[in-house]
Amino acid sequence: MTRTQTNKALPQSRCSRDFSERTDSTTMSTVTLTLFYAIICCALTENIANVSSPNIIIMLMDDMGWGDLGVLGQPSKETPNLDAMAAQGMLFPNFYTANPLCSPSRAALLTGRLPVRNGFYTTNGHARNAYTPQEMVGGISKDEILIPKMLKKKGYVSKIVGKWHLGHRPQYLPLENGFDEWFGAPDCHFGPYNSSIRPNIPVYNNSEMLGRYYEEFKIDKKTGESDLTQMYLQEGLDFIVRQTEARRPFFLYWAADATHAPVYASKRFLGKSQRGRYGDAVMELDYSVGQILSLLQSHGIANNTFVFFTSDNGAALMSGPGEGGSNGPFLCGKETTFEGGMREPAIAWWPGHIKGGAVNFQLANVMDLFTTSLALAGVDPPDDRALDGLDLTPVLLNRPHALQSRPIFYYRGNELMAVRLAEYKAHYWTWSNSWEEFNSGINFCPGQEVPGVTTHDQKEHTMQPIVFHLGRDPGEKYPISVLTEEYQDVLSRISLVVEQHERTLVPGVPQLNMCDVAVMKI
Amino acid sequence: MTRTQTNKALPQSRCSRDFSERTDSTTMSTVTLTLFYAIICCALTENIANVSSPNIIIMLMDDMGWGDLGVLGQPSKETPNLDAMAAQGMLFPNFYTANPLCSPSRAALLTGRLPVRNGFYTTNGHARNAYTPQEMVGGISKDEILIPKMLKKKGYVSKIVGKWHLGHRPQYLPLENGFDEWFGAPDCHFGPYNSSIRPNIPVYNNSEMLGRYYEEFKIDKKTGESDLTQMYLQEGLDFIVRQTEARRPFFLYWAADATHAPVYASKRFLGKSQRGRYGDAVMELDYSVGQILSLLQSHGIANNTFVFFTSDNGAALMSGPGEGGSNGPFLCGKETTFEGGMREPAIAWWPGHIKGGAVNFQLANVMDLFTTSLALAGVDPPDDRALDGLDLTPVLLNRPHALQSRPIFYYRGNELMAVRLAEYKAHYWTWSNSWEEFNSGINFCPGQEVPGVTTHDQKEHTMQPIVFHLGRDPGEKYPISVLTEEYQDVLSRISLVVEQHERTLVPGVPQLNMCDVAVMKI
Repeated sequence: MTRTQTNKALPQSRCSRDFSERTDSTTMSTVTLTLFYAIICCALTENIANVSSPNIIIMLMDDMGWGDLGVLGQPSKETPNLDAMAAQGMLFPNFYTANPLCSPSRAALLTGRLPVRNGFYTTNGHARNAYTPQEMVGGISKDEILIPKMLKKKGYVSKIVGKWHLGHRPQYLPLENGFDEWFGAPDCHFGPYNSSIRPNIPVYNNSEMLGRYYEEFKIDKKTGESDLTQMYLQEGLDFIVRQTEARRPFFLYWAADATHAPVYASKRFLGKSQRGRYGDAVMELDYSVGQILSLLQSHGIANNTFVFFTSDNGAALMSGPGEGGSNGPFLCGKETTFEGGMREPAIAWWPGHIKGGAVNFQLANVMDLFTTSLALAGVDPPDDRALDGLDLTPVLLNRPHALQSRPIFYYRGNELMAVRLAEYKAHYWTWSNSWEEFNSGINFCPGQEVPGVTTHDQKEHTMQPIVFHLGRDPGEKYPISVLTEEYQDVLSRISLVVEQHERTLVPGVPQLNMCDVAVMKI
Repeated sequence: MTRTQTNKALPQSRCSRDFSERTDSTTMSTVTLTLFYAIICCALTENIANVSSPNIIIMLMDDMGWGDLGVLGQPSKETPNLDAMAAQGMLFPNFYTANPLCSPSRAALLTGRLPVRNGFYTTNGHARNAYTPQEMVGGISKDEILIPKMLKKKGYVSKIVGKWHLGHRPQYLPLENGFDEWFGAPDCHFGPYNSSIRPNIPVYNNSEMLGRYYEEFKIDKKTGESDLTQMYLQEGLDFIVRQTEARRPFFLYWAADATHAPVYASKRFLGKSQRGRYGDAVMELDYSVGQILSLLQSHGIANNTFVFFTSDNGAALMSGPGEGGSNGPFLCGKETTFEGGMREPAIAWWPGHIKGGAVNFQLANVMDLFTTSLALAGVDPPDDRALDGLDLTPVLLNRPHALQSRPIFYYRGNELMAVRLAEYKAHYWTWSNSWEEFNSGINFCPGQEVPGVTTHDQKEHTMQPIVFHLGRDPGEKYPISVLTEEYQDVLSRISLVVEQHERTLVPGVPQLNMCDVAVMKI
């Protein structure tokens, strides 16, 4: 049975294409599928045709979970614009990140390579996820090639809005890596810090530092109020308008971070969600997505703009319900290689090219966005390095293809923790978090405990992996008995994939091994 | 903020209304939202108008979970007909059963009264759910009035198809309780039994016993093959056609049980789901729903037929992934008073009357189907007894109403375990299952363990209930601290509700206290 499908064409009719502004208190609380349904009948009014060098927008959320979207089962159904985007586009329920933590996930997306190849990992601890806080000296290697640099070959203008997270020292910043513009910050909006010893994170406009979080860029940690998402939205809209007017193809990497703790939203969204402050942030991001898609439509460039929405890792369950999202039916969350840590919400949107209302079960991941972006732009991928991303355009455009059987690799640091092949997932190592962390109240799997699986010791299972069938058991709760034929059959197939992967893997030089508090004073 | 909303009218257009037959192996595997999206633009092409005595169909699933529907987040998205039904109708994400077990849930639906009132409970054990296996002598009290008896006042012809479960002795059977026709069985399809000591469950056509499960009515427990759902479908379709031709208003209670272990499906559905055998059963039921709605449309009676789809209790997680469903993001399952045990998938459908594509957050439950059915038929509810069901027609038809603040009561046996009011739920007693059961491998909350909540001892919290906010914490994982103002405020409001409820409650005589193995030989 094939698990990759697209749907039949939708009936053509005349409908409103507007993404409504849902901002006042009355309409904000009117959480229905209205828009979702009202616009889907006009998702495809043109034949699919090749367009050379479409604009590309990647919307990358921060710690947003698979289960945070109405279309993916959030009970409060508070994402009408994303649900509408799915109804007009293609939903990928089997979409993954490359690592359950921000920095390596983002490095993988932008390089098309696993963190173990591009160097975004540490060897300071086994299976330890690493990222780029202030005291971290490292960043993205100068040997890596990022999407914007490749797209420049076809004249694309590129901008990153929001969180960078690939190194905060000058040589690692976005404009050194192919982006033409940047509005945002190099790191997470943790804080406020005592600036005399540990300065707050700076906010940049291109190479100019405009100020710092909690100082010029306010985040009220008590009320959760901040205008940052609105700023990021305006920066994105302004960039789109400028490039459209100049008739230049563009790449917008819109990396808003409101759903990362400390969660924030602007005044008009605070208190509007049934889900608390985290839900307020989701509603503002959903609104922003609607505004961006609406702008593409009103400027007549929707049919020439490929948009992909996803998140960098699973919801941060350790942050609790006010500051963390939902991973739906999946196990655990951020930091882990269970499904809740690495399965991401994912929607592709490109009116006139991607048929609306499709659900595609292709196994795919953030690294595919590298290769797919290059394919859309007509740029050959670099041939001097191993790439982990595949070109999804055959799937997106419903052309014959053979991607279905590709595996998904789940890494922590440079340890291959698990592998998914078709519906089966084999865990070679299990670990939620350490007993030390757990006993101090930090829990990566609150309310969940699968014996022998959500372990607090690092458990090796390489001789006898724990295998789940993710179709009948998406929550990874019922290990398949090693005594069954099914287990033996699956394991033999996955073992071949792992052997091939490990035989050809050349790990990159780890970039995240060195800390130096002195750098914080720069 | 109001949590009860319906949406704006959808654009009118000409679209196919067909629910496709999705039966051959190719289309069956093509699980997309095609139908879901293709038909929603034509959900409402007429103005809402009053219709006297519409036909009423209640489709009650057996052990199907909230998370088993694509529209509610099932990752495999294998319910295109139910998703289309939701898109044409109204989805209730906050819909509940009255008890987390089959018999009392069904008794509550048909009487509009909590099991503690209608007697469908036992006092043989504290907080013990009881049902009607073969050795149980009891059944629905002759003092109770069921939906079909009330509808008869307006000339309705009523049929039950499938599982009865309100007592198997002759005086308790459906035709003694207002139904004009019955095709199905009095009990679960457990078995096969050694018929010399414990006979297999009989299957009836009206008052005639046609045969028994595993004998004349085959269920292959090894392969999972059975034609029962197809029989139930045909019985339902045939009844609809006959009543339509005779121009009689009808009530069809379609209670198929394929998703109750041992799970079964007919040959053409077996092996078609990504989810295993349980998913095959869901796909066949989804197909059947599509067939029934399609018949209503092709016979021109869709606008005069109110259809409601729901389930009797949460997914049976103790049955494992091949035999049990999904409760999505909710805690535990069948038998428990956590959300996974009592929150149900629920869709109302009535073209021309219920606006399509609406999501309604009203707290509602199966007992409302009693009162709502009577209201639709224009029958006054009985005034000699307390009713727990409310009339949902103002919600369904988008008229001004004031139901929002009604509470939901969670019972096991005659113990009030928990209460929901608005977004808050207070647990007065917690219990998953006994240590004895748990240690023998029966787990009502596999993979889930919330300390102090999913307890294996019966824990009383009446002095200091455990409180959750179900909006930001649908999984009941983060109890609200008793030291907060929020806790004190919520508890004072819920306490008033409980006090009022308990002050006026007159428990019915328990009907499920007596067992007698001798009755099995009848």
